[in-house]
Amino acid sequence: MATVELSNKRIILKDYVTGYPKEEDMVLVTSTIGSKVPHGSQAVLVKNLYLSCDPYMRWRMSKPVTESYTTPYTPGSVLNGYGVAKVLDSGHPDFNSGDFVWGITGWEEYSLITMPQALTKIKYTDVPLSYYTGILGMPGLAAYAGFHEVCSPKKGETVYVSAASGAVGQLVGQFAKLMGCYVVGSAGTKEKVDLLKNKFGFDDAFNYKEEHDLAAALKRSFPDGIDIYFENVGGRMLDAVLLNMKVHGRIAVCGLISQYNLTQQEGVHNLFCLVAKRIRMQGFIEPDYRHLYPQFLEMAIQYIREGKVVYVEDVVEGIDKAPSALIGLFAGRNVGKQVVLVAPE
Amino acid sequence: MATVELSNKRIILKDYVTGYPKEEDMVLVTSTIGSKVPHGSQAVLVKNLYLSCDPYMRWRMSKPVTESYTTPYTPGSVLNGYGVAKVLDSGHPDFNSGDFVWGITGWEEYSLITMPQALTKIKYTDVPLSYYTGILGMPGLAAYAGFHEVCSPKKGETVYVSAASGAVGQLVGQFAKLMGCYVVGSAGTKEKVDLLKNKFGFDDAFNYKEEHDLAAALKRSFPDGIDIYFENVGGRMLDAVLLNMKVHGRIAVCGLISQYNLTQQEGVHNLFCLVAKRIRMQGFIEPDYRHLYPQFLEMAIQYIREGKVVYVEDVVEGIDKAPSALIGLFAGRNVGKQVVLVAPE
Repeated sequence: MATVELSNKRIILKDYVTGYPKEEDMVLVTSTIGSKVPHGSQAVLVKNLYLSCDPYMRWRMSKPVTESYTTPYTPGSVLNGYGVAKVLDSGHPDFNSGDFVWGITGWEEYSLITMPQALTKIKYTDVPLSYYTGILGMPGLAAYAGFHEVCSPKKGETVYVSAASGAVGQLVGQFAKLMGCYVVGSAGTKEKVDLLKNKFGFDDAFNYKEEHDLAAALKRSFPDGIDIYFENVGGRMLDAVLLNMKVHGRIAVCGLISQYNLTQQEGVHNLFCLVAKRIRMQGFIEPDYRHLYPQFLEMAIQYIREGKVVYVEDVVEGIDKAPSALIGLFAGRNVGKQVVLVAPE
Repeated sequence: MATVELSNKRIILKDYVTGYPKEEDMVLVTSTIGSKVPHGSQAVLVKNLYLSCDPYMRWRMSKPVTESYTTPYTPGSVLNGYGVAKVLDSGHPDFNSGDFVWGITGWEEYSLITMPQALTKIKYTDVPLSYYTGILGMPGLAAYAGFHEVCSPKKGETVYVSAASGAVGQLVGQFAKLMGCYVVGSAGTKEKVDLLKNKFGFDDAFNYKEEHDLAAALKRSFPDGIDIYFENVGGRMLDAVLLNMKVHGRIAVCGLISQYNLTQQEGVHNLFCLVAKRIRMQGFIEPDYRHLYPQFLEMAIQYIREGKVVYVEDVVEGIDKAPSALIGLFAGRNVGKQVVLVAPE
């Protein structure tokens, strides 16, 4: 079949972002893309089905400072991020047209992936394919590795999760419950707090926006202190947690979403607790644990099939909705994992 | 021999301290103490030879807040801390008069130790006995355990030590050099910086008070970044270090001396580096590693005898000088480990 030109809607970053991102920082353009990979290339041409909105994307929208550890986006170019796609044409022996894949793809309808080694072929399709942007993708492995590898959890320990209804938090809480921990989460609306208690099985949950004194709220939930804090938030929440940690507690730092849009980061004042309580605080990113993905996938797919773990997604339809969905993360508009449906399977 | 009353000079804490401690916060009183332990008691009566001035003592001078993890001093009572003493009389089977011991004792000429289990009998007396307040005591084990157990050092790694000429810092630097690390230290005077480079064998050193931009100073010393930071200082130094850490770096938090006298702790703003660089930051206190003391002692005594490790002390004579020696720590007046000679052996 001859190459034809496909119409391709794309989301372009206009310029580096300062402060909170706005819809106007991104622009939808319509371009075209060939329906075949270039002759002799090992690239893969995919049709994007789902795009994932993840907080880390905000880091990449900032003008890079020296020694940035993330690859910044290029103003004027298409955004990229995790997604689920269907292979339309492949020059790479590992991929065939019709395969479903997940991995880094463009924020556009069709992408030519020149490094298809970074894509993962989807093994199980008896679950929603969008799950590969969440529970069966990067956020899932981040929750699993962050909790099991970084937090060194033990049965019966007390676990606190902030941003607990989000893509990662909802899983951390459920993994901790499956281990026999006492789990409390916080979120920013009543709807989310209800989800935590009634859908995800957290032992308790609170709306941090309704708490004037976060340290007192935590003291109420954890009268004997916190063994493990899964940190998604930072800032004054971290300060309140430090005061409530137990001796030999552990803090896994997955993200600091409260800080990403500030031009001046909030100061954290209670680090002395690290010494007094001998706390281990450790940052991590999911790619460092990618070798665990195969075993994680087998475990997670079983949990899903058996109903032991549930996953809540917030799906918006249409690539034109992607910019508002992304910025909604920072206002807490999403209820569960934020996904953009670009095209039906 | 009958009990006689011995004249006993003691340092009393007048009241809880706010901000920087002053000499007037402590008062010297002369009291008396019996020359024998009470009949039937398991206590030990000691003559104090050396008292140790340690930064952690400042924590204990503050009015306790809820859930303090340190035992506060009692206003109106004698101070206590690490020291070296000679047993004058003992009701405990493990101790005999004439024994030299180290451990927690009173800031006074003679102390009746009612929990002598917490004292350690001194095994080697071919080194200055004052070393048991330093290299062979709590600071020595803190340096050893903090570096070897918390920092997970590897040969060839880059190590930064703040407050590097102090009781702990000077040892961390030397232990790191013995492991084959590249070691840079900072201190607050030219004299101390010279000690670091010429006496303790640090690869490089700088006077932090002469650096307007600490991050730039660290960048100069560590163009490729810091693998291990041994934290004694906190505040803006920690912020500068975070910017200069390498991926998978480790920070052992031994103390935060820059913060102890502040009524409002400085904020630390660069914790995002924990995530981006996957840094492990861990607080510790020496008592958690006391089980390692016997093996540490054998190693350290060999190092001292072979001249592989040296130790610099700042000894003032007379218990009346103890308050000014203690508060001198927070102005950086001490050059090396601050000790008070109470009585000659």
